[in-house]
Amino acid sequence: MKEILIIGAGKSTAVLIDYLLQKAKTEQFILKIGDIDPENAKKACDNRKHCKPVHLDVFNAESRESAVQNADIVISMLPARFHIEVAKTCVKLKKNMVTASYISKEMKALDEEVKQKGLVFMNEIGVDPGIDHMSAMQVIDRIRDKGGKLLLFESFTGGLVAPQSDNNLWNYKFTWNPRNVVVAGQGGVAEFIQEGKYKFIPYHRLFRRTEFLEIEGYGTFEGYANRNSLDYMSIYGLEDVLTLYRGTIRRVGFSRAWNMFVQLGLTDDSFIMENSENMSYRDFVNSFLPYSPTDSVELKLRHNLKIDQDDLMWQKLLDLDIFNKEKKIGIKNATPAKALQKILTEKWSLQPDDKDMIVMYHKFGYELNGERKQIDATMVHIGKDQKETAMAKTVGLPVAIATLKILKGEITTPGVQLPINKEVYEPILKELEKHDIVFKETETEYLGYNPLER
Amino acid sequence: MKEILIIGAGKSTAVLIDYLLQKAKTEQFILKIGDIDPENAKKACDNRKHCKPVHLDVFNAESRESAVQNADIVISMLPARFHIEVAKTCVKLKKNMVTASYISKEMKALDEEVKQKGLVFMNEIGVDPGIDHMSAMQVIDRIRDKGGKLLLFESFTGGLVAPQSDNNLWNYKFTWNPRNVVVAGQGGVAEFIQEGKYKFIPYHRLFRRTEFLEIEGYGTFEGYANRNSLDYMSIYGLEDVLTLYRGTIRRVGFSRAWNMFVQLGLTDDSFIMENSENMSYRDFVNSFLPYSPTDSVELKLRHNLKIDQDDLMWQKLLDLDIFNKEKKIGIKNATPAKALQKILTEKWSLQPDDKDMIVMYHKFGYELNGERKQIDATMVHIGKDQKETAMAKTVGLPVAIATLKILKGEITTPGVQLPINKEVYEPILKELEKHDIVFKETETEYLGYNPLER
Repeated sequence: MKEILIIGAGKSTAVLIDYLLQKAKTEQFILKIGDIDPENAKKACDNRKHCKPVHLDVFNAESRESAVQNADIVISMLPARFHIEVAKTCVKLKKNMVTASYISKEMKALDEEVKQKGLVFMNEIGVDPGIDHMSAMQVIDRIRDKGGKLLLFESFTGGLVAPQSDNNLWNYKFTWNPRNVVVAGQGGVAEFIQEGKYKFIPYHRLFRRTEFLEIEGYGTFEGYANRNSLDYMSIYGLEDVLTLYRGTIRRVGFSRAWNMFVQLGLTDDSFIMENSENMSYRDFVNSFLPYSPTDSVELKLRHNLKIDQDDLMWQKLLDLDIFNKEKKIGIKNATPAKALQKILTEKWSLQPDDKDMIVMYHKFGYELNGERKQIDATMVHIGKDQKETAMAKTVGLPVAIATLKILKGEITTPGVQLPINKEVYEPILKELEKHDIVFKETETEYLGYNPLER
Repeated sequence: MKEILIIGAGKSTAVLIDYLLQKAKTEQFILKIGDIDPENAKKACDNRKHCKPVHLDVFNAESRESAVQNADIVISMLPARFHIEVAKTCVKLKKNMVTASYISKEMKALDEEVKQKGLVFMNEIGVDPGIDHMSAMQVIDRIRDKGGKLLLFESFTGGLVAPQSDNNLWNYKFTWNPRNVVVAGQGGVAEFIQEGKYKFIPYHRLFRRTEFLEIEGYGTFEGYANRNSLDYMSIYGLEDVLTLYRGTIRRVGFSRAWNMFVQLGLTDDSFIMENSENMSYRDFVNSFLPYSPTDSVELKLRHNLKIDQDDLMWQKLLDLDIFNKEKKIGIKNATPAKALQKILTEKWSLQPDDKDMIVMYHKFGYELNGERKQIDATMVHIGKDQKETAMAKTVGLPVAIATLKILKGEITTPGVQLPINKEVYEPILKELEKHDIVFKETETEYLGYNPLER
């Protein structure tokens, strides 16, 4: 019997575990689930066959090594910053490894040793990063194989609430880590390239520089720029492309409304507010507005952000109860971002019957035999319930499939890597289709940025 | 003969050196000037009596110690981050020390040892910080001595171009380190308190939340908030004050125009622009605007910042030649802030006959015998020429005066300190008056923030 070890048994691993346990008998392996809290691991196994919960403290070398020792492959589902501890142990004990996180510098530094030992360290194999890489590279390789030249690549992903559960004015609920949503875009300027011109968007303009996206059957979405688009030139081999842009998808109007928080300063995570614990929601908002002995917080905010009386943005604010005098932030030493997260979580949490949705949109412009063409590829996946969410499925399934393929020796190229090679993405995308994670493509003439020159 | 050692013979030390050399004979001391470049030190001494240039490498312990060894007191005019090396040597060799910079954490940590050895380490004794501390504490102490209770303290300082040399649309020229002007406000959110309410202004709103200030004979100025107003509660003993606000002075309209750069992202110092060396001024501006195959950079900017056709702000931009296609940034690996500094320096440098000006404005609100009153104290000092600038005088004179008073044993309280005690500020302010650095006070009823409630 072979052995797969999952480290970190969070809620988000349910789909991953279910998929693997369905295959455990035919593929002849044992699934061990290691967690710092033995109860968590036990609950994740739920007395199922082929599953064994173990206690695992990732910061204790002995605990780590004794758990990894008997595994053939290790999946780290810990927060990204903890992967490196697991990775070092895997190198030492010669085990393959899988994560759904971006390759960190420290992880990258292990590449040579990993190659020498003939190990596969597969990273960025969740949804974003993960399915985005695989589905994009599949089309890019196909265009290149035909002799085409890439002109444009744009790629957008969003974790949203499903249409049937979309019942607030923001058309948004938290379907993953709320903190990431509140501080989104704060890592640095957004950089990308459009028709050969480098473009930079500072954080405080990010949510007003959106573009619209149509997806048949799902209506209109909008996208704002991600930080690191230029990094993808080397990752995807797109050094000569004229336009390269990666973004995040929201429902139309979200970004313009979110910009109110950015403009006021409510998303700031860089300083602690005095007395945040006893601050009311109203005090919180007021501390970002000029002092006035006479005027209301409401009018000061309207004036400050130039919100007209008939603007729906105003109703969006009211819906969050953000001017409430009684409700307290209730968090000691809160940054504005933490306080805002508290306010939003109250209104934007998924209800028991709510479903989530993952939306992905790739746009490829290319030249083939002197003609300019465009492919638009879209994927929409709606969650089943609160356990089998779209997020858990689109992260868990590719991780599980890749793990099995490495275990069975079907993915063998060694090194610290991400899924951009055909041998990796082809079989995984095929398997994902069976689980209703399917891309639809439309092909048109090139509709890029220079309509008047065509 | 006693000995004073100045470390760092930059242009800005001319007034300091002149003042000390005028006193060298009667006060019986030698002035040594240490610099990493012996030519600099020699030029600063200019063959004058009582002055001796020495080579001094502040990063070489031997060089440092041999220079400090024979001194009675050491003035560090180096960039602030280098003071700590000098300070450690002064502690070791038991020498007094003077700087015009903010007390760093590392400097503060020396306090106990400095006290034990009976040494005086006087810091923050330039203009801002320096004259602002002294002139404010003089009024605050006077109000308290009468039994008054402080309600409000606001304090503004600005280094500007003098009215007779004020001949550009921005009413501004660089009179000190241009870099500090370009990145001003980027250290973190501006925090202050108004009528008991904490207020926060994020960087991207800072230059639109200004207030106006009138100074008789000089017209209207404006002030934007400095980062750290709340720190002054403990420094000045103003824990119970209702309003505490510190700001920077500019001529009216500067901040609103500067905000164009902030909004575009041109002041960002956090990332490097590809190919900055060969970028034209126009390319630079365009990289912060949306791509368009047809529209001009000019119209995109006007639209993006909503600048009406008749808005003077537009002319301010044109005056900087910021849309020029031929002029290159010409700096490798430039951040936007560095590129902007290059563009501004071309237009905002002081010309040979230009004079600079220091403006300071304190506002004190207080309650005495049941009555609410207000004192407004203002100081305007205009430079003589390019050597005796207002900046060099208002920094150099208090440093020089404090140094002599410590040397003569008139300031003796040991410790790492700033000039907020009467024994220090009274004689120094008196001496400054002889050099035309004079505060004018007006007393009125309290005009604070609640006019309708009075």
